[in-house]
Amino acid sequence: MNEAVRIAIDAMGGDHGPSVVVPGAALALRERPGTRFLLVGDEAQIAPLLAREPALSAASEVVHTTVAVRMDDKPSQALRSGRRTSSMWMAIDAVKTGRADCVVSAGNTGALMAMSKICLRTMAHVDRPAIAAMWPTVKGVSIVLDVGASIGADAQHLVDLGIMGAAMARIVRGIERPSVGLLNVGVEEIKGLEEIKAAGRMLRELALPSLDYRGFVEGDDLGRGTVDVVVTEGFTGNIALKTAEGTAVQIGRYLREVMSANLMSKVGYWFARGAFAALREKMDPRGVNGGVFLGLDGVVIKSHGGTDAVGYARAIGVGHEMVSHDLLARIRDQLALSQDSQSAAAAAAALPGTAAVSAP
Amino acid sequence: MNEAVRIAIDAMGGDHGPSVVVPGAALALRERPGTRFLLVGDEAQIAPLLAREPALSAASEVVHTTVAVRMDDKPSQALRSGRRTSSMWMAIDAVKTGRADCVVSAGNTGALMAMSKICLRTMAHVDRPAIAAMWPTVKGVSIVLDVGASIGADAQHLVDLGIMGAAMARIVRGIERPSVGLLNVGVEEIKGLEEIKAAGRMLRELALPSLDYRGFVEGDDLGRGTVDVVVTEGFTGNIALKTAEGTAVQIGRYLREVMSANLMSKVGYWFARGAFAALREKMDPRGVNGGVFLGLDGVVIKSHGGTDAVGYARAIGVGHEMVSHDLLARIRDQLALSQDSQSAAAAAAALPGTAAVSAP
Repeated sequence: MNEAVRIAIDAMGGDHGPSVVVPGAALALRERPGTRFLLVGDEAQIAPLLAREPALSAASEVVHTTVAVRMDDKPSQALRSGRRTSSMWMAIDAVKTGRADCVVSAGNTGALMAMSKICLRTMAHVDRPAIAAMWPTVKGVSIVLDVGASIGADAQHLVDLGIMGAAMARIVRGIERPSVGLLNVGVEEIKGLEEIKAAGRMLRELALPSLDYRGFVEGDDLGRGTVDVVVTEGFTGNIALKTAEGTAVQIGRYLREVMSANLMSKVGYWFARGAFAALREKMDPRGVNGGVFLGLDGVVIKSHGGTDAVGYARAIGVGHEMVSHDLLARIRDQLALSQDSQSAAAAAAALPGTAAVSAP
Repeated sequence: MNEAVRIAIDAMGGDHGPSVVVPGAALALRERPGTRFLLVGDEAQIAPLLAREPALSAASEVVHTTVAVRMDDKPSQALRSGRRTSSMWMAIDAVKTGRADCVVSAGNTGALMAMSKICLRTMAHVDRPAIAAMWPTVKGVSIVLDVGASIGADAQHLVDLGIMGAAMARIVRGIERPSVGLLNVGVEEIKGLEEIKAAGRMLRELALPSLDYRGFVEGDDLGRGTVDVVVTEGFTGNIALKTAEGTAVQIGRYLREVMSANLMSKVGYWFARGAFAALREKMDPRGVNGGVFLGLDGVVIKSHGGTDAVGYARAIGVGHEMVSHDLLARIRDQLALSQDSQSAAAAAAALPGTAAVSAP
C-alpha cells in the first residue's frame, strides 16, 4: 500500500483530551512516517500542543469544534448534544466522507459506538457491531470479541463474530488461518447454551478457508492463548475482560506488598529490578491498547480513556495496521463467502432429490 | 453447638482418590478435634491409609463400596452407573438419612450436582441450586455465585442467590449484614440485562435485614472486594471464575520467566524468597478450596479435583463451618422472610384501596 494512511483523531476524547492525544499522535507519526492526521477539536487547545511537534504539525490538518462528548454522557445525551457538531462525530464523519481511512477516539465507549453506528452504519449482512479486544496471552496476543458492544447473540451473530475476529487476527498475528474457539462453560458436548452449540455446528459445516474452528474453550483458555480468536457475546466478554484486568491489578498489588514487606525483600527487589521492569512491560495495558469496532462500514478504534501518549500511539498503530491491511475488504469477502455457503446449503436442502442423495 | 459435626466423605472422588482424601481428613481432624467422619469407598484402598492415621481411624467409620463415579462421567452416565451404589451417592445419602451433617466430594462437579439434586432435593421456594465460590480479594474473601450450577437466571432466582450468598458470607466473614452486588456490564442504569435490573429493584424493595444491597458491580470489582457477595447466573460466573484463575496462572508464569532470566534477577529472587513464599501463599488456590452447593436440603461441599491433602482439609473445614453455624436454617429463614414480604406486597397491591393510597 503506497498511499499514506489518513487517520481522523477525536482530539477531545479521553480523560486528558489533547494533552495526551497530540503527543500520542506525534509518537505514532515517528513510528509510522508518512501517516496523515485530521485532528478534530478545539483549535485553541490543540494549536499550542501542535506547535511543539513540528513533524506532526506538517502532517496534520486541524478541524475546529468546541463541542466535546463528555466521558460520563449517556449515548443518547451524546447524540442529542453532539451529533454533527462534536469532535467525536466529526472525526467519525471524516471516515464516512472519505477524508480519513479510520478514526481513533479515547472518548466514552457507548457514545462512540452509538455515533459510529448512526454515521457509518453496519456492513451488509451484519446486524450489530462488536468490540474486539487484544488479549495478552502466554503465547502472545489473542483477539476476544465481543467485549461489550451488545448483549446476547444468536448463532448467526456468533458465527459472524468468528469471521470478523479471524480477519482481525490475520492482520494482528500475521496468521493465514487463525484458530477460533467459542467461549463456553465446558468442553463436553452436553454443556453450554443452545446458541453456542448451534454456532459451533455452523462453523464446522461452513469450513471456511479463513479460519480454523477448534470448538469450545473455557475462561482459563483466554490467558493460555489456546486459540487465536475467542468468540462470545458482549455481556460475558465484557465481564471476562474486566475480571482479568481486575485480577492483574490484584496480583500486582500483592506483589508490591510482599516486595516492600522487609529489608530482605527490598534488597531482592533492587537486584531483580530489571526483571520487575520486564514484568511491568509484559503486563502493561498500553501494549494492547486499541479496541477495534467490527461490523461497521469504516474502521473505528477505541483507545482506553485513561491512557497516556504511549498508549494512545499504540491505538493509532492498531488503526494504521487495520487500514493498511484492508480489514474491511477481508471481512466483507469472508462474510459474503459464508452467506453464499449458507444459501447454497439451504438451496440444496430445498431440492428433494439432493436431500435424498445427501442423507444416506 | 456441642454435638460433634459428622462429615460424610466421598473417599473415591477427585484425581487422586483416597491417597489425598484420607490424609486430608486426618489434617482436618487435627484442626477441628471432635469431628466425626464417614469414609465412603473401597475399603481395600482406604484401610491401609487409615492405618497410618490412628486419630482419624478412631473418629471414622468406613462404608464400603467399590463403585466410583469417574471424573469424566457425564451426569447421566454417573446416575446410570452409580445411583445408590457409588461412593458419591452413598456419601450424599448419608446426609439425607441423617447419618452425616454434610458431604464433601472432590469428584466431578456435574455428577455431584445431579446426584445431590435427586437425593437431597432443593429447599422449599428454590427452583435450582447454585455453586458458591470463595473468591480471594485484596480485602480478604468474597462469595461469588452461581459459578456454574445452571445457565441463565430470572430476577427471582438472582434474588434468591443474593439471599443464599449473604447467609454463607455471614458465616465465612462473620459479618452481620453482608453487602451484595449484582454482576453487570456497567453501573449506569441504562446498561445490562432486564432480569438483572429487575432483581436490583426487588432487592432494593425487599430491604432485607440479612443483606445490604449495593447495586451493580463489574468484573474488576471481583478482585477488588467491592462487595461481600457477588451475584450472577452460572454461565457468566463460571467464565469469570476460570478467567481469573487463568489470569493468575498466566501472571505466575510471567513472574517465573522474568525472575530466572539472568543472574541479577536470580540473586534478587534469593533475597526476596520469603516475599515470594508469601505471594505464593496469598495466591494459593488451596486456601479457598471448597465450593458450596446452595439451595439444597443438605450441605454439599465440592473440593477441587486436583487438590492435595491441605486443600482437601480446607474443603472439609468449609463444610464444618457451614454445619456448625447452621447455614441451612439461616437460608430457610431468610428465604421465607423474602417470600412473606413479596406476598404481602402482592396482597397490598391487589387491594384497590391500598393501591390507591400507595399511588400518590
